[in-house]
Amino acid sequence: MRLARIAHPGGVAFASIEGDGDDAQVLEIAEHPFGNPNFTGKRWPLADVRLLAPILPSKVIAVGRNYAKHAAEFGNEVPADPMLFIKPSTTVIGPNAPIRRPDGIGRVDFEGELAIVIGQPVKNVPAARAASVILGYTVANDVSARDLQKADGQWGRAKGFDTFCPLGPWIETSIDATDLALRSEVDGVLKQDGRTSDLVHKIPELVEFVSGVMTLLPGDVILTGTPEGVGPIEDGQSVSITIDGIGTLTNPVQAV
Amino acid sequence: MRLARIAHPGGVAFASIEGDGDDAQVLEIAEHPFGNPNFTGKRWPLADVRLLAPILPSKVIAVGRNYAKHAAEFGNEVPADPMLFIKPSTTVIGPNAPIRRPDGIGRVDFEGELAIVIGQPVKNVPAARAASVILGYTVANDVSARDLQKADGQWGRAKGFDTFCPLGPWIETSIDATDLALRSEVDGVLKQDGRTSDLVHKIPELVEFVSGVMTLLPGDVILTGTPEGVGPIEDGQSVSITIDGIGTLTNPVQAV
Repeated sequence: MRLARIAHPGGVAFASIEGDGDDAQVLEIAEHPFGNPNFTGKRWPLADVRLLAPILPSKVIAVGRNYAKHAAEFGNEVPADPMLFIKPSTTVIGPNAPIRRPDGIGRVDFEGELAIVIGQPVKNVPAARAASVILGYTVANDVSARDLQKADGQWGRAKGFDTFCPLGPWIETSIDATDLALRSEVDGVLKQDGRTSDLVHKIPELVEFVSGVMTLLPGDVILTGTPEGVGPIEDGQSVSITIDGIGTLTNPVQAV
Repeated sequence: MRLARIAHPGGVAFASIEGDGDDAQVLEIAEHPFGNPNFTGKRWPLADVRLLAPILPSKVIAVGRNYAKHAAEFGNEVPADPMLFIKPSTTVIGPNAPIRRPDGIGRVDFEGELAIVIGQPVKNVPAARAASVILGYTVANDVSARDLQKADGQWGRAKGFDTFCPLGPWIETSIDATDLALRSEVDGVLKQDGRTSDLVHKIPELVEFVSGVMTLLPGDVILTGTPEGVGPIEDGQSVSITIDGIGTLTNPVQAV
């Protein structure tokens, strides 16, 4: 199932998307998408609604340097344990919403990533049970103010500006995410071309590790890291991240 | 006003605390404590209720190395700009709740801190207007797994374990926090003895800086940094942090 959050003529709702292209339909979900969602019976053509961030997480946990070639492109080692940092929930935006790039903060980079969306409240999940607590997967852009990241040491500011966590276009709930192609393009030019099979710390291990530290709540998001090929984005550009089997997350970049 | 969250015989509520010692009374607030709170008319002696974390923040933004002598005790410089990191909201506990110290993670330290509680949704607040967006101040313990902090580089894990952000005992809404004494004791032995006047980046500057990066929501918490004298806490110990004019936050430490 493809789970989305939508703005429709009467308000905002979770929804399921059925079909593709011009035939795609959006079926409204009552209340929330966890467990077995109930449908209201309302539906619209996909073209008639606006997609929002598919989930509003209570927290976004990100994993640094989790693809060997990306760690290497900045001269870093792959850490033995997953290196965690938190992005504030106020960073989250949806598809097509502008990434607002503050003036005077130097280089700002896109980072295409596979995002795990948690489906239930959990703590201490063994890797073998990880799949059962995952609602699904979506596409993320871990936007990063590269110069501030270096200057500050801790990444709370560099990764924490409003709009620095585009998520979407929806959550795919029935996919094996162990070997998916991930491509990032800036204004149509291919920049990242990776596969999730190159994750150093794999999805089940990440769920075990993160849930061993902190309680995860329904809708919480784990960003699994970015492959090599990250680079700067500028005012007026558009960045698209595609994960095969999930979809494409596109956001314009706007100077503020 | 001293704003608290309480568990009373009929449930959980925000409340105001009036009076001191054996005469202290708890007055229940309807709904939330922002703006001009409405009172339900229900009241209890303070001894008959349990104090919870005075607020459940959507995010906790912490400032590293914001007292010169604490930066120096680990051989670090004071950063030119405030160094921000985020603690997940699942770290928050209230007074007297146990700090659960995971087994096998090495040294775990207390860090007594003044916490700013935000009172309204804000972005880009100039320092001169900071006071108008602050609900009040409470006491915080930025519990830190010191060995993991060094090993990981990023502090998402070391500062992110469940229970690693005790807050309380309440939020003092009418106090000038620019020069308050802050003392931390472990099992009654004085460990930290600082003053908030030694903050490198002061409260108005921190509100301007953080709100320049991210939207702050009502109840969000900014931890202002810890003075020198931090140290380890072990199973069975009790850590108390006192800020004069606010109160004392006490938590036992429990191995898990």
